Amino acid sequence: MTTSTDFTLARVLAAHARIAPYVHRTPVLTSRTLDARVGATVFLKAENFQRGGSFKARGAMNCLAALPPEVRSRGVAAFSSGNHAQGVALAARAFGVPATIVMPTDAPASKIAGTLAYGARIVYYDRQHEDREAIARQLAEESGAVLIPPYDHYEVMAGQGTVALELLTEVGSLDALLAPVGGGGLLSGCATVAREWFPTMAIYGVEAELADDTCQSFRAGRRVAIPPPATIADGMRNLAPGALTFPIVQRAVTDILLVSEQEIRAAVKFLLTRLKVLVEPTGAAGVAALLAGKAPAQGKRIGVILSGGNVDAAQLTDCLKADDW
Amino acid sequence: MTTSTDFTLARVLAAHARIAPYVHRTPVLTSRTLDARVGATVFLKAENFQRGGSFKARGAMNCLAALPPEVRSRGVAAFSSGNHAQGVALAARAFGVPATIVMPTDAPASKIAGTLAYGARIVYYDRQHEDREAIARQLAEESGAVLIPPYDHYEVMAGQGTVALELLTEVGSLDALLAPVGGGGLLSGCATVAREWFPTMAIYGVEAELADDTCQSFRAGRRVAIPPPATIADGMRNLAPGALTFPIVQRAVTDILLVSEQEIRAAVKFLLTRLKVLVEPTGAAGVAALLAGKAPAQGKRIGVILSGGNVDAAQLTDCLKADDW
Repeated sequence: MTTSTDFTLARVLAAHARIAPYVHRTPVLTSRTLDARVGATVFLKAENFQRGGSFKARGAMNCLAALPPEVRSRGVAAFSSGNHAQGVALAARAFGVPATIVMPTDAPASKIAGTLAYGARIVYYDRQHEDREAIARQLAEESGAVLIPPYDHYEVMAGQGTVALELLTEVGSLDALLAPVGGGGLLSGCATVAREWFPTMAIYGVEAELADDTCQSFRAGRRVAIPPPATIADGMRNLAPGALTFPIVQRAVTDILLVSEQEIRAAVKFLLTRLKVLVEPTGAAGVAALLAGKAPAQGKRIGVILSGGNVDAAQLTDCLKADDW
Repeated sequence: MTTSTDFTLARVLAAHARIAPYVHRTPVLTSRTLDARVGATVFLKAENFQRGGSFKARGAMNCLAALPPEVRSRGVAAFSSGNHAQGVALAARAFGVPATIVMPTDAPASKIAGTLAYGARIVYYDRQHEDREAIARQLAEESGAVLIPPYDHYEVMAGQGTVALELLTEVGSLDALLAPVGGGGLLSGCATVAREWFPTMAIYGVEAELADDTCQSFRAGRRVAIPPPATIADGMRNLAPGALTFPIVQRAVTDILLVSEQEIRAAVKFLLTRLKVLVEPTGAAGVAALLAGKAPAQGKRIGVILSGGNVDAAQLTDCLKADDW
């Protein structure tokens, strides 16, 4: 069995070799305007251009690729109303196996349409009256499908770590790396790569103030759960860091930075109106932290992961009302 | 003196050599989703990522580069409340000469801020009570500044033609090329490149139905003027095609396609929510034509110029209300 000390750069390298044929090597964007604003040289890894609109395709692809073919052929399942759903649907199609995504009946229409477009079957449940776990057991009994967790799985974490692997391969040594943190899949994978490759690099997770479960846990030295958070950053609405991700975050990350809802909305607007790229609220957290001066930046080389670009029209309209930086 | 028959690919090649150090070679984007939707292989030349947010920097840079240094050093001037203002301001800064931009007092705050940020001086005029021509004469008398026209100038047209030169160099032969048409600077430059290089390629200008001066002119065989149009595509609000651009459009272009306001808004929304890139209404006209089935597409290789990405928050909010394709 793998333990957190076995989770190394080598595992991310293996993931990259597996998934490279199935995912985009996303571009690294730069902006004179952003650099001038923060006094740094900033490299933005644009996972909003990834297949399915976020980094989630990487972890799902790696997870499926690592399954024994006779297990994988029974199909896969996931619970998600967000980016993980589309990642798993894409991965299942890539490997030619059926995918079942369990979504709440009130999931946004655009997410449902996206998931269906990638060929997955959707099973709806009533968030108020039904038990996700019972649905999962029933699904597994019916079909033998393998449940793909959204973050707390070493192959998922290794897949997400390929984001940092590609960024650092392209731009070389950095003074600091900033990644958004929800359940910690992206952050634990990327921090493992960055820490092992460049031992003195500062590595920051960036989290919404309203969803500060990882920040609280990091300070307390143990996993802390919070009530359901109301942040606009829908990729950060988990209640606690993962059992597998958190020890790696503790070990490899320098600090967790917090950003306000207003700072997140203004960062989405800045990226859109100045850089002409659509980044979702969760994905804009790193740029929010830089623009708000929450990480040392002056004169430094800084990598920021733009984790995704799946935004509803209503959410985006809300961001456009933010004040400019 | 140059006449329209002297305006050839060679002139665009010369422009490219001059301006390459000063402008971005913008990326060519592709999308499985868009290809599936229109049944074609589509190559999007992303001038929304150009310096200043649109292709306009190319023509302005070439115009300034071609001026004798002793003339250029007296400075340049332009009338514009839009992308041309930022293009001229950037070009003047690149050559270290002063720029004066004449803008109406009611120009959007974001355009004013952008132009000032590039180091230009702004002279405001009252659209209702003042005469642009009188202001231009006064400026020239005061400073000797050279007026840079927005489209009707061979060096401007040659600079804009470098967009097609880069696209065709990168992707090779196409079945069709679509470019938005306002005054015709971009279309005449790009059509000259495409027609001379690939004589059988279909070349389409795409225009808003509400601003169909070039379409009417193309059908009539002479320049036709229209009343001030109210289209959301603010780069198409000119009243007639240019005296220099129109003969080239007549000679090199296959047809002018028209798109509705609703089709333009929905194309902006499609590019934003599906491809995660911000394109302004004028710049989305080509994709609008493809999505609306107005150009033969099935099985073809099609190039589309996304001409710019400068959108006000209010304009964008309006586009987000459009129905999805």
